[in-house]
Amino acid sequence: MKAQLGGDEGKHKFVLKTPKGTRDYSPKQMAIRERVFSAIINCFKRHGAEVIDTPVFELKETLTGKYGEDSKLIYDLKDQGGELLSLRYDLTVPFARYLAMNKITNIKRYHIAKVYRRDNPAMTRGRYREFYQCDFDIAGQFDPMIPDAECLKIVHEILSDLQLGDFLIKVNDRRILDGMFAVCGVPDSKFRTICSSVDKLDKVPWEDVKNEMVGEKGLSPEAADRIGEYVQLHGGLDLIEQLLQDPKLSQNKLAKEGLGDMKLLFEYLTLFGITGKISFDLSLARGLDYYTGVIYEAVLLQQQNDHVEDPVSVGSVAGGGRYDGLVGMFDPKGRKVPCVGVSIGIERIFSILEQRVEASEEKIRTTETQVLVASAQKKLLEERLKLISELWDAGIKAEILYKKNPKLLNQLQYCEDTGIPLVAIVGEQELKDGVVKLRVVATREEVNIRRENLIEEIRMRTSQL
Amino acid sequence: MKAQLGGDEGKHKFVLKTPKGTRDYSPKQMAIRERVFSAIINCFKRHGAEVIDTPVFELKETLTGKYGEDSKLIYDLKDQGGELLSLRYDLTVPFARYLAMNKITNIKRYHIAKVYRRDNPAMTRGRYREFYQCDFDIAGQFDPMIPDAECLKIVHEILSDLQLGDFLIKVNDRRILDGMFAVCGVPDSKFRTICSSVDKLDKVPWEDVKNEMVGEKGLSPEAADRIGEYVQLHGGLDLIEQLLQDPKLSQNKLAKEGLGDMKLLFEYLTLFGITGKISFDLSLARGLDYYTGVIYEAVLLQQQNDHVEDPVSVGSVAGGGRYDGLVGMFDPKGRKVPCVGVSIGIERIFSILEQRVEASEEKIRTTETQVLVASAQKKLLEERLKLISELWDAGIKAEILYKKNPKLLNQLQYCEDTGIPLVAIVGEQELKDGVVKLRVVATREEVNIRRENLIEEIRMRTSQL
Repeated sequence: MKAQLGGDEGKHKFVLKTPKGTRDYSPKQMAIRERVFSAIINCFKRHGAEVIDTPVFELKETLTGKYGEDSKLIYDLKDQGGELLSLRYDLTVPFARYLAMNKITNIKRYHIAKVYRRDNPAMTRGRYREFYQCDFDIAGQFDPMIPDAECLKIVHEILSDLQLGDFLIKVNDRRILDGMFAVCGVPDSKFRTICSSVDKLDKVPWEDVKNEMVGEKGLSPEAADRIGEYVQLHGGLDLIEQLLQDPKLSQNKLAKEGLGDMKLLFEYLTLFGITGKISFDLSLARGLDYYTGVIYEAVLLQQQNDHVEDPVSVGSVAGGGRYDGLVGMFDPKGRKVPCVGVSIGIERIFSILEQRVEASEEKIRTTETQVLVASAQKKLLEERLKLISELWDAGIKAEILYKKNPKLLNQLQYCEDTGIPLVAIVGEQELKDGVVKLRVVATREEVNIRRENLIEEIRMRTSQL
Repeated sequence: MKAQLGGDEGKHKFVLKTPKGTRDYSPKQMAIRERVFSAIINCFKRHGAEVIDTPVFELKETLTGKYGEDSKLIYDLKDQGGELLSLRYDLTVPFARYLAMNKITNIKRYHIAKVYRRDNPAMTRGRYREFYQCDFDIAGQFDPMIPDAECLKIVHEILSDLQLGDFLIKVNDRRILDGMFAVCGVPDSKFRTICSSVDKLDKVPWEDVKNEMVGEKGLSPEAADRIGEYVQLHGGLDLIEQLLQDPKLSQNKLAKEGLGDMKLLFEYLTLFGITGKISFDLSLARGLDYYTGVIYEAVLLQQQNDHVEDPVSVGSVAGGGRYDGLVGMFDPKGRKVPCVGVSIGIERIFSILEQRVEASEEKIRTTETQVLVASAQKKLLEERLKLISELWDAGIKAEILYKKNPKLLNQLQYCEDTGIPLVAIVGEQELKDGVVKLRVVATREEVNIRRENLIEEIRMRTSQL
């Protein structure tokens, strides 16, 4: 991947690579990527979403104060005179800025674009510094938990559709977390930082998290232990009912609100028939500052898969939640627009599908060419150009080799290599007879087609494929 | 567009806007944008192109020395430790870097992505600092002018397909320009800078360009006048023949090579039947340093259009050329990969189409929703959720209002506003009878459909639309 390069002037030596944590997509990778995008976009459209786009960078101050401890991972642009700019860190903050700026109080939109984080890359596990997010959000003042339930339905549909194996969607609520912190004796001022510690529970064991809470963040060991008891709980409607009876939690206003909404959410998810893959999990925290209500995260469950020799270790593939205060942070009068959304983290999904394709014998075509226009003898370039021009004008996907006198064998080999199903061969005799010889690459069958019927014949034969 | 915003802390005041020279795309703009992309991608695929993607930023040194006087327009990222990075300025240099890095000597690919230039924006005319390029390039050692002719065919197909009105594709060759400079008495060392001056001829009159050549760049007035005579020439095969006989040019090796290839190019373009829109134009220069052979640029011709009150002033909408040396600049051993390509500058095309839609009565749908699941009475949220879940699972594009008890009138109004063609209405009676009332929004026709036939009925009715 790296190569020392001496410039023309013999002065520079530079490394031939993409920036750290980024990658190119080859045509084959793009073919896989487009399959995934297509499944996701189909789902978003099925749920009636519009689509928007925003610039890759924002004013630096637009991003300030939205990401808590993660703000250090934001890429800033160099001050070259003019505005101070940063690359977007997610699609949620630009969305909120867009709503406030255009005074939109009601929209259901998706946005698929790259975001940027100066994180430690782990590229084999699909963690990059430049990566795609596929976001679906519902903004507006609505009756409780109906849009929230639809977001979870969407995650369920997409992960099922992509056939990534078994998955689990963990659900929690910021209000339940905050209520839990309160009844465990965490001071108000430490809610956010203790929440960040809990957020690490999916990667490190409880003992390490406790040490961070007590050692680094100054929480009392007793408070930490009380948190420790709650965060091991997970379940469904039964657990929600149990916590609604919990002598301490039930006395806390925030926790009670959160648990009430969680119960409603599970009722809607039951109607959608998807509670089998949903787990109410008190250890789910999610680090971002802007969440105010329900939060969720989907993880793929490790599985034995005969087709994959060395299974990729994957974690979260989707996440999101409710953020009712974010738009108000941008509005001149602080007017709030309640929002809930979900973000599909597709890099990990790519990694899995790429590895699956590698392991299988599946041959992925990277073009859609229907026919190669070939010649059987020399000096027929002009005839090939005339014919292919007719085909292009009729909307047929067609190629020629860029040689004056290519060998027929090389032309046929090109079709084999790239999966082109048909060859239209012009030769002296065919020209005299007013026909083109159409060859089916797979069967080697050859048939003379009258020139005026060729387009129809190609359409007919490639629509059958 | 701008609003002063006091932060929650009452400390910051900040401007609510996108960075200078950038914009958001609303759902309606995205609908237009996707139509344009689809036409362009269809054309690229019709010509057998694969697709790749590269990161939005490159190592700074990757971009160094590729853009001549335009290098000052490159966006650099802030040095936050680690590599020095710049936002890509075009898609051509990243493509060349990709070829060299992966030792690819033969590929036909397209790439559609945003590029970044710290230029003076003129947004009403579609000139932005962040804008899309749609690039198609052919890399490889081939017989002369065959790929070059295909690039021009592609520009012709796309501009015809988008129905933007009359257009002209200007063609020239760097070798003809350099030969012309030589025979006019321009010193070798001044070729590039004089070329940059000629490049301004489409925007400023000859006198200004001459003043720049003589005053700023130190060319003799006689040399400038000699250039002035050549650059007013434009035509077709006749002009090529005439210049091949030109006593001075025909003595120059570079010019002769360029003119010979130009003649071949026009022969191929004649076979493609597109010479009517092609003009060999000696004033076409194109500023970028990396071109080595044929260059071209497509411009829309101003037209009277009754539908548009205030026609947008538009210039170049596509451009490109041959760059045989660029990949070699990245290859450790300087191995060359000849390339030719074209870039469609779609921002101007968007501007025109947007204005056309605004001026017309055309109503653009921004969603694809087929059916709204509605209720006729209160307390039917659960029934709506159950029904819509069935529809989603069957692949039907469906929405509900996120209210427990929406009024039927509001539900119907939502369909009118967003163009949803069908309403599936559940009510007490329908539930008892095992039917759903299907309403056609346009005709107000209502018909009871048995629940088990509903999906089939919706599919049938929306495929007719």
